[in-house]
Amino acid sequence: MKKLINDPSNVVTESLAGFQAAHADLVTVSYDPMYVCRKEPNHAKVAVISGGGSGHEPMHSGYIGYGMLDAACPGNVFTSPTPDQVEAAARAVGGPPGVLLLVKNYTGDVMNFEMAVDMLGGEFPVETVVIDDDVAVQDSLYTAGRRGVGLTVLMEKLCGAAAERGDDLAAVKALAEQVRANGRSMGLALTSCTVPAAGTPPFDLGPNDIEMGVGIHGEPGRERQTIRPADELVETMFKAVTEDIPFKSGDDFIVMVNGMGGTPLIELYLCYNRVAELCRAKNFTISRCLVGNYITALEMQGMSLTMLRATPEMLKLWDAPVHTPGLRWGK
Amino acid sequence: MKKLINDPSNVVTESLAGFQAAHADLVTVSYDPMYVCRKEPNHAKVAVISGGGSGHEPMHSGYIGYGMLDAACPGNVFTSPTPDQVEAAARAVGGPPGVLLLVKNYTGDVMNFEMAVDMLGGEFPVETVVIDDDVAVQDSLYTAGRRGVGLTVLMEKLCGAAAERGDDLAAVKALAEQVRANGRSMGLALTSCTVPAAGTPPFDLGPNDIEMGVGIHGEPGRERQTIRPADELVETMFKAVTEDIPFKSGDDFIVMVNGMGGTPLIELYLCYNRVAELCRAKNFTISRCLVGNYITALEMQGMSLTMLRATPEMLKLWDAPVHTPGLRWGK
Repeated sequence: MKKLINDPSNVVTESLAGFQAAHADLVTVSYDPMYVCRKEPNHAKVAVISGGGSGHEPMHSGYIGYGMLDAACPGNVFTSPTPDQVEAAARAVGGPPGVLLLVKNYTGDVMNFEMAVDMLGGEFPVETVVIDDDVAVQDSLYTAGRRGVGLTVLMEKLCGAAAERGDDLAAVKALAEQVRANGRSMGLALTSCTVPAAGTPPFDLGPNDIEMGVGIHGEPGRERQTIRPADELVETMFKAVTEDIPFKSGDDFIVMVNGMGGTPLIELYLCYNRVAELCRAKNFTISRCLVGNYITALEMQGMSLTMLRATPEMLKLWDAPVHTPGLRWGK
Repeated sequence: MKKLINDPSNVVTESLAGFQAAHADLVTVSYDPMYVCRKEPNHAKVAVISGGGSGHEPMHSGYIGYGMLDAACPGNVFTSPTPDQVEAAARAVGGPPGVLLLVKNYTGDVMNFEMAVDMLGGEFPVETVVIDDDVAVQDSLYTAGRRGVGLTVLMEKLCGAAAERGDDLAAVKALAEQVRANGRSMGLALTSCTVPAAGTPPFDLGPNDIEMGVGIHGEPGRERQTIRPADELVETMFKAVTEDIPFKSGDDFIVMVNGMGGTPLIELYLCYNRVAELCRAKNFTISRCLVGNYITALEMQGMSLTMLRATPEMLKLWDAPVHTPGLRWGK
């Protein structure tokens, strides 16, 4: 294992210390229990909180700030945060308007966020939305049902914008459910990745192999395949993503072509080029897009495609100002 | 070679097509000769232009837009742009206030930008500043003198801001020279990277080896070393970067901890944590910072440290609004 780390058991805390130092104007990191919240929480609006294992940066802590998340709970690498982390984060930023928990669908995450809700004891209203946008597989190593992946980024942006303008808890939750119903994703891996505490990759890919439908923790996807031209790989993902609901001619989209952490931007834009061509052929309009590393799997080489069928209202919320370490515009 | 590409000879054009599709509100890509410029060039101000081999994304095309570059000339991967590309870019965005060319110090780049100046024939004033901030080695495979690396990003931001507010060519050039005189960088690699047209890595690193002082094309650095804890590696770079001019107690800095393309953000923040500690110990103030992938070497794993001793005026220009695909704030 060759990584820019010190003691493997301190990776998350040392990285968060650097994150705090780099973004002291935006966030405050607490270590016991571990959570990150806005420097100046606004208790007079709905608080939007997420969390999950570390190793997916900039998600989630990188999306804390004006117009997006209020707090996030980073677990160890690829490990769910504990209930007391979630409880502490909710108490730090929650208030009378309530808290919305956005939880990616992994068994540990769902269980621990549920326990946190019990521990909060009804002090303020709490609602939860579980994200399960990965069309690759129905059940998985750590999941009953579909995995939560790239749609999380878009949901955090949109719900954060709605909460920032003063929408109430029911409205922000309804928006999250609407995003959930209209967004789908799928990814692929060219290489595995190594969790620091483990020291070895969870799976091996031969020099010409890819994992089509990989999860963001290196979970198996649909199929081990031989590498093909990017256009063909993108087409496979596009078909899976767009035919699931299915999307229809004339639909508008927010599209994300996301890198898994180790894929250069030159390749992501090349993949986006194919996505744009395929959308034109289907009469899908790409109204907004993100191309870059937004939800990663450590140093994994690979990419994922997320498409959200967007209403005019979603586009308006997308365009609203956001100021976080990982996503910023309009401010 | 396992990459998300189609025909290796079309990587740059297909990637630029995706870049154009993703950022049609900001940029226009021309293909023959190849250059990228702002969608709406402003000929009434100094135009700031850069360029160089592709494979370092988001640099340079990703820094085109309000408050930063006016145009960029992407060569093939790790290959200098040709003089006609530079000439065409300058004609597309230049006007009576003149053009400033920011050129990284590689023999081919310097020569081709010089030829372009001749080809422009004095139609409008043109000045050139060569960037040579890499303290790792004095001469190199493609360089007489020091290589131009991370400082380029900071110089493009600061000069772009000065040009945007209406500074004249002499003033923007003087600023670039001041940045050049006060900025230093050094990098390291954990892995090599593969140029698509070559198909094999330019060098190999053993499972426990790193290249200390690596260039952004995988050029050899100071020394092949055994991997050590990140804190020690950062300390080696910090010492080399800060003792070169040298920087002094009480100095203010803009600091960039940059990923080479394949290094996850969790590691970059961990490295930044150590940089911040070392700065505190030296009584250096980090006034602004960037942590992320800003000048890359394809999928190389590794990082670089850039430190610019900043005046209050530079900090003001740093904070000025910028709206580009790769760097955005205040708008």
